[in-house]
Formats: sequence, structure tokens, C-alpha cells
Amino acid sequence: MLRSSPFFPTTVEDYRKIVDDYDTWLFDCDGVIWKGNTPIQGAAEVSQFLRSRGKRIIFVTNNPTHSRATFKKKFAAMGVEASVDEIFSSAYASAVYISSVMKLPKDKKVYVIGMSGIEEELREQGITTCGGTDPSDNILEPIDNPAHDPSVAAVLCSYDSSINYAKLSKAFQYLTCNPDCAFLCSDEDLTYPVEDGVLFLGTGALTAMMRYSLGREPVNFGKPSRTMFESIIAKHDINPSRTIMIGDRLDADVAFGKNCGVATMLVLSGLASLADVSEVGPIVPDFVTEGLSDFCVLGST
Amino acid sequence: MLRSSPFFPTTVEDYRKIVDDYDTWLFDCDGVIWKGNTPIQGAAEVSQFLRSRGKRIIFVTNNPTHSRATFKKKFAAMGVEASVDEIFSSAYASAVYISSVMKLPKDKKVYVIGMSGIEEELREQGITTCGGTDPSDNILEPIDNPAHDPSVAAVLCSYDSSINYAKLSKAFQYLTCNPDCAFLCSDEDLTYPVEDGVLFLGTGALTAMMRYSLGREPVNFGKPSRTMFESIIAKHDINPSRTIMIGDRLDADVAFGKNCGVATMLVLSGLASLADVSEVGPIVPDFVTEGLSDFCVLGST
Repeated sequence: MLRSSPFFPTTVEDYRKIVDDYDTWLFDCDGVIWKGNTPIQGAAEVSQFLRSRGKRIIFVTNNPTHSRATFKKKFAAMGVEASVDEIFSSAYASAVYISSVMKLPKDKKVYVIGMSGIEEELREQGITTCGGTDPSDNILEPIDNPAHDPSVAAVLCSYDSSINYAKLSKAFQYLTCNPDCAFLCSDEDLTYPVEDGVLFLGTGALTAMMRYSLGREPVNFGKPSRTMFESIIAKHDINPSRTIMIGDRLDADVAFGKNCGVATMLVLSGLASLADVSEVGPIVPDFVTEGLSDFCVLGST
Repeated sequence: MLRSSPFFPTTVEDYRKIVDDYDTWLFDCDGVIWKGNTPIQGAAEVSQFLRSRGKRIIFVTNNPTHSRATFKKKFAAMGVEASVDEIFSSAYASAVYISSVMKLPKDKKVYVIGMSGIEEELREQGITTCGGTDPSDNILEPIDNPAHDPSVAAVLCSYDSSINYAKLSKAFQYLTCNPDCAFLCSDEDLTYPVEDGVLFLGTGALTAMMRYSLGREPVNFGKPSRTMFESIIAKHDINPSRTIMIGDRLDADVAFGKNCGVATMLVLSGLASLADVSEVGPIVPDFVTEGLSDFCVLGST
């Protein structure tokens, strides 16, 4: 589907046609299903309605701080049905890429800037990690030259609220001392929203330091990168022409949909506002709606 | 003086002519006078020789972690004579700019990412700081919205070995919530060398995070910015055509000399090697020599 400007569905028929046209529904989470720890109105009902119509539902999040098992608990707390197989996070996509695409040898390891969720996903794929949440591995001594540890084959940067100088310098040194060391990042979100519109720095900001100092671009596993889609199609049989991606960010969600050749819907229940949807902008969604609750015009069956 | 390729002095006459041609000698420190905590051979003798010939000596360092008073002690430990008035550091240049050029009102303050040396210089210029080494100001709570503190008129980024997520996010929020908040950095050195050729991340790397997330460039007080030169000429009466800058980095020291319209000499006793000196490169020094000890051919008087 190609449109030069987004379509704003309004009638029952508009929404019914969208439901009829797509078999697989990819949902971003923050700003679509929930906001922080508060469920977004309509999300539970609409996802249940789509299931009742035999639609496949997949949740795609750039949040790398939780494992899928932890996300499953969060979905339950939000009243939304979700199985682990339906949840694709940037932490999981990172782990799948390192084990299945890079095929990291068993005697090699990954230096992690990140939190326990990403470590959990990596270990579940049989990947040995260092750094991360291990306090003994986050101390920097001037004589501590990581070039002496050639078993570190990749540095994986991810959101880390305990980021410190030792972690950043170690990551930098692994990448500098060994040009074959892969430079990876779970996602490139510059910021993430917390309460009251305040923005905190995201993975993209933490990675900027390395990207700028090294003059090297990381391999990104988060939206809008197609890598995330490849980890989805490795597990689910999907027809892109009958798939729609729904999200609240043009640069991550809508761009992701475009990169994967699927239809896109921007919801205004998260970061983007109507003013962000420009017909002349570089990223134009196929559909724009206030939020998932707009689908409630279709009733519950 | 304009040259299309650098001149490599070899004879006593070559060195004598350089000494005769320049009255003011600007010296970078790390890689020229010392390496870490080890004096570089010849530095003490050559600076003493130049003083005996009535030359003015000024030390210009991008290291923002010490105050000039602390640097004076380091010079003494290296056996090199230096007064506080002869030492220009990026911390001092930052403080002079904020007090004399920005003319920060007394009821405003500066949020500092940095160490005690830069705080000391700021306070000496009568500037109120927050953040920095104050542990009580480096804790981030989700409800801690810095937009509520409009007295923060500038964020000054500097090398900080205790950098953490709270400091980075606070700096980012001051700059995001108040578009009039000035974005400043002591220097833009991406890395600094420690033992065995290992590089640690410098101010430029820490600043990259903010620069990238904000899409905004900081005002830089370190070499190669002319701002550093302006703080020197505010204190010393200098004739640029009879001034030479000597340093070990093309991008910081030689570029600084070029930006200030003074002659430049690259020494190979620090970061740069002969291979870095390309006739077709964008930054060509006027002179190249192994190190200050090469001036010893002139004897001690």
C-alpha cells in the first residue's frame, strides 16, 4: 500500500476495512498498550477483539531492560493477553542475532552495557557475558588493558541506568584494541519518556559516545532496523502485504514498518502529536488515529 | 608565516632562528612537558633556556581536572618553573568565559559535569555551581524535574571519571527544559592517553551524548577553539606574528595555533607520529621536531 498522505479513519466501515485487510498486527508497547505503568484505554479490549477475529498479534518493543518473561508479567498486570512467543524486544532480538546470525563461538563472550533483562535473554541463547550488572567487572584500573582479553568478540550497548565511566571506557577499549570486536546496540532510541513529559536519555544517547569516539556505526537490533523483523519472521510465518505495524513514534515504529514493507498506523496516545504528521515529512504513516480505543467503534465481537 | 609543508629543523642555526623569531612560546603540557606523571626529557632545560633569553612562556592545557594552583604543584614536581599566571587550562578558560563574556548574573548557577579542579576555578571567579562533585546533587528521581529550577543558566560538560546516568540525564534535562540554558564544554578531546598506549574517553566523548541527543553544538573553551586564546590575550600583551604554539596533537594544538594566527610546532614526544604529518592533510604544522630536547643543541645559555 502506497499513500502520499495518511488516512484518518473515522467511520465503522473505515475500521472494519483495516481489520479485514490485515492478518498480522504488530504492536509497539509504550505509548500504545501502556504509558509507564498505566494501561492505555482500549488496548486490552482491542487486542482481545482482534484475537476473536483470528488475527495474529505480536508485540515489538525497543525497551531492552526486561526479558520477555518479565514483559509477560507486565502484560498480565495491564490486563492484556500475551505469550512469550508473541513478545519481541530489542534485548531478545540482540540475543537471537548474536547466537543465530553472528554464531558466536562458545569460547567467546559479549561485553554488555545494560541491565539484567538483556543479560537474561543473552544467557537464554547460551551466550557468555561480561560487564553488565557484575559490579566486579565495572571497575577500571589504568593498567587494566582489555586488549589482553581477546575472548571478548562483541560489545553490546543498551540502556543502563547504572552507566559509569568504567563501563564506557572498557567498552571503548575492547572496540579500539580489537578491530574485529563487533559493535552492537539493542536500539537507538535517544530518549524515553517518564512522568510529566520529562525525557530521560536512552540507549542511543549512551551509544553516541562510542559512535563519535570510534567513528564507527553500531549494528542496531531495535526498530526501525529490519533486524528486529528478521527475528520475528524467523519464528512466525508472516505475509508482509497483510501485516500492519502500530506505534506512537514516527522515527522508530512507522519507519520500522516502512523498512519491513508492511502497512503502518501512528497512534497519538504516546510521543507523537498531530503536528508531527506532515504530508511532506520523510516518514508518512498509512493511517493515523488517536489511540487503540478508536477501534472500539467495532464493538466487542 | 605560511608554508605548504612542515619544516624539520636539524642544525643549530635552524633552532637558533626559531628562538630568535618568537617572543611568546605557548606550550601544551601532556605529551610535551610530561607524559602522565613522568617529565619529558629536555622540557625543564629548554623552558629555562628560553626564560634566560627573555622569552615569555605560557602553558596551555585542555586537561580540565585540575585547578591552576594544582597544576603549579605538578610543574614543580616535574622540575619546570611556572607561575599561576602562566597556566591556562580549559577549566580556567571556562570560568573566565562564564564570568567575563557571559557575565552570569549572581542569582544564576552552572550545572557542572566535572571534577573538583573545574569547580575550584569556577568558584574563584565567583560562579555558583551545582552538580559536579556534590553527591547529593547526583541522584535522579523520576519526579525530579529540573525545569522547576530556572536558576540553572548553563550546563558545563567536562571530563568526569565519576560520570553516571543521573548526571547525564540532569544535564540533558536542564538543556531540554530551558532553551535559554547555555550548553558549554571545557574541551572536546575525545580520548586521553594513559599507560601503554591505552586510551580512556575524554570530555568530547562524554559531550557527544548530549550533542547527539539535543542536536545542538556546545561552546567549546579548549583548544583548538580561539576562546582559549582570548582568555590568554586578556591577561598578556601578545604579538601573534612573534608567537609559537608547541604541541603533540594536530587536531588540538596545531589547529589551535592556526586558529589564533600564530606559528606552530608539532613535537613527536606525545600522541602524533611522523605518519600523521602529511603534506596534503588539512592541518600542517610550520615545524616538526622529535621533542623539546632537540632544542638542547643550543646549549644551556
